[in-house]
Amino acid sequence: MIIIGELINASRKAIGTAIEAGDADSIKKVATDQTEAGANYIDVNAGIFVGKEPEYLKWLVQNVQDVTDVPCAIDSPDPRAIEAALEVHKGTPMINSISLEKDRYDNLMPVVAGTDYKVIALCMSDDGMPETVDDRMKIADKLVNSLIQNNVKVENIFVDPLVQPMSVNNSFGVEFVNTIEKIVETFPGIHTACGLSNISYGLPARKFMNQTFMVMAISKGLDGAIMNPLDKKMIANIIAAEALTGKDNFCMNYLKAFRAGKFEM
Amino acid sequence: MIIIGELINASRKAIGTAIEAGDADSIKKVATDQTEAGANYIDVNAGIFVGKEPEYLKWLVQNVQDVTDVPCAIDSPDPRAIEAALEVHKGTPMINSISLEKDRYDNLMPVVAGTDYKVIALCMSDDGMPETVDDRMKIADKLVNSLIQNNVKVENIFVDPLVQPMSVNNSFGVEFVNTIEKIVETFPGIHTACGLSNISYGLPARKFMNQTFMVMAISKGLDGAIMNPLDKKMIANIIAAEALTGKDNFCMNYLKAFRAGKFEM
Repeated sequence: MIIIGELINASRKAIGTAIEAGDADSIKKVATDQTEAGANYIDVNAGIFVGKEPEYLKWLVQNVQDVTDVPCAIDSPDPRAIEAALEVHKGTPMINSISLEKDRYDNLMPVVAGTDYKVIALCMSDDGMPETVDDRMKIADKLVNSLIQNNVKVENIFVDPLVQPMSVNNSFGVEFVNTIEKIVETFPGIHTACGLSNISYGLPARKFMNQTFMVMAISKGLDGAIMNPLDKKMIANIIAAEALTGKDNFCMNYLKAFRAGKFEM
Repeated sequence: MIIIGELINASRKAIGTAIEAGDADSIKKVATDQTEAGANYIDVNAGIFVGKEPEYLKWLVQNVQDVTDVPCAIDSPDPRAIEAALEVHKGTPMINSISLEKDRYDNLMPVVAGTDYKVIALCMSDDGMPETVDDRMKIADKLVNSLIQNNVKVENIFVDPLVQPMSVNNSFGVEFVNTIEKIVETFPGIHTACGLSNISYGLPARKFMNQTFMVMAISKGLDGAIMNPLDKKMIANIIAAEALTGKDNFCMNYLKAFRAGKFEM
C-alpha cells in the first residue's frame, strides 16, 4: 500500500495556524511523525490561502524535506502554486490531482506532460459527480488515455475513483470498489489511490466504517490511500488485508507488525 | 448474513463436560446467549462421543429447542446420529455437512434427498484438500448438481469452499474469496457458509485477521458464517461490511447497531 500522509493540510486548524505564523517546527514534526508511521508521500496543501498559496506551498515543501527523504504529494489545482513548490522539491513528487474538469485539466496537463511525476487522476468532470462504475470509467478512460498521450507512464498514474457517501445512496460503496477492480483490469500496471473517509459522511462510528471500507477496497485491488498514517487501527487493517490478499510473502510484514505491537489496540 | 452459532460443540471442554454430566442448564444458556446475539441456526455437535453420538445429539437438540425457536444445524457425518436428532427437531434444520468424500456422501445424500433441509456442502473429496479456485469449483459443481438431482433446492444449499491457513500458502486467502465470488456467479440463488478462523492458523493476532478476512469474504458475496455470535467485534465487522456492500437499506441495521452500542468495543 502506497500511503499518502494527509495531515499537512491548511484546512486543518493547527496546520493553517502554523503556516500563517511561520512555525516551521510544527510542520516538521507532523512530517516526521507521518514518515515514521510509514507514509510514502507527504501531502502538502495550502489551498485556503488565496493569493499566498504559491509562497506557502513552497515553504511547506522546504520544511517537510528538511526532515524527511519521503517525496511530497503537491496538493493544488493551481499550476503557479505547483510550479513554486517544484522549484524547491527534491526527488520525484506526486501531483494531487488532475481531473477532467476543464480548468483543472487545462492547467495541470502541461505541468505533468512528459515528466516522471506521479499523478493522481481524479474521476471528476464538469458533468457533475460520478455515481456508477460506468460514470467513473468514462472519466478514467479519457483521463488515463490523455495522460499516456502526454507521455505520462501508466505506472505513474494513480486513479482516484472518488468516494461518495453511503448515507446518500447505499450502492455507493459497491460502485466505488467495483470501479477499483475495473480500473486494475483495464489498465495493467496502473495504480489507484483515494481518500476513503467520505464513505461514512453523515453516519456514526465513522472510523470503524472507514476501516471496514479500506479492507473491501484492498480486496478489490486498491494500492494507494490518502490517509492519516497515525491511525493505528487503519494501519493494522491495511497490514492484515494485504497479507490476506497474498501481497505479503510468508506474512513477513504481518509478523513484523505483530512483534512491533501494531495489533494491540 | 446467516449466522450459524458454533459454540455447542463437544470438542469445547465446557460443552463436552456438560453433555457427559447431563447438565442441560449449561447447554440452554449457550443456546439462549447465541440466539440473543443474533444466531440464525444453533450448531449442535457431539462428535467426540463415539457410540453415544446419536443419543447425545438428540439430547442437545431437545435442550436447545426448549429455549429457542431458532433451528439447529445438525453437525455430524453419521446418518444414525442425524436421524436421532431429526426425530425430535422442530422446524427445518440445517445439515452440517455433506461433502464429496465417498463415505460421507453415500451416508448423507439419502438423509437430505427430497427434503427442505438446509444443507452445507463442503468442498472436500477423497483426493485431498482443495487449494485453488478450480480445485474447489470441481467439487462444488459435482456436489451442487448431485444435490439438485436429488431434489434439494438450490436456495437450500450452502457451499463451504473450505478455508485453508495463510501460514501454509499466502495465496489461500485469495483462492478462498475468489471461490466465493465464482460460486455466487455460477449458481444463482445459492448460499455460501463457512468457518473462517482456519485462515489465521499458525499466525498471531488471529481474531484481528479473522475479522479482516470476514470483511473480504462478505465483499465477494459470502452470506453465511459458522462462527461465535458472541464475538462483538466480528458482529460489528459484519454489520459494517453488509452496509458497505449495499445489503442494508438506508443503513438502517447499521444505525440500529450503533444505537445499541455495538460499535463500542
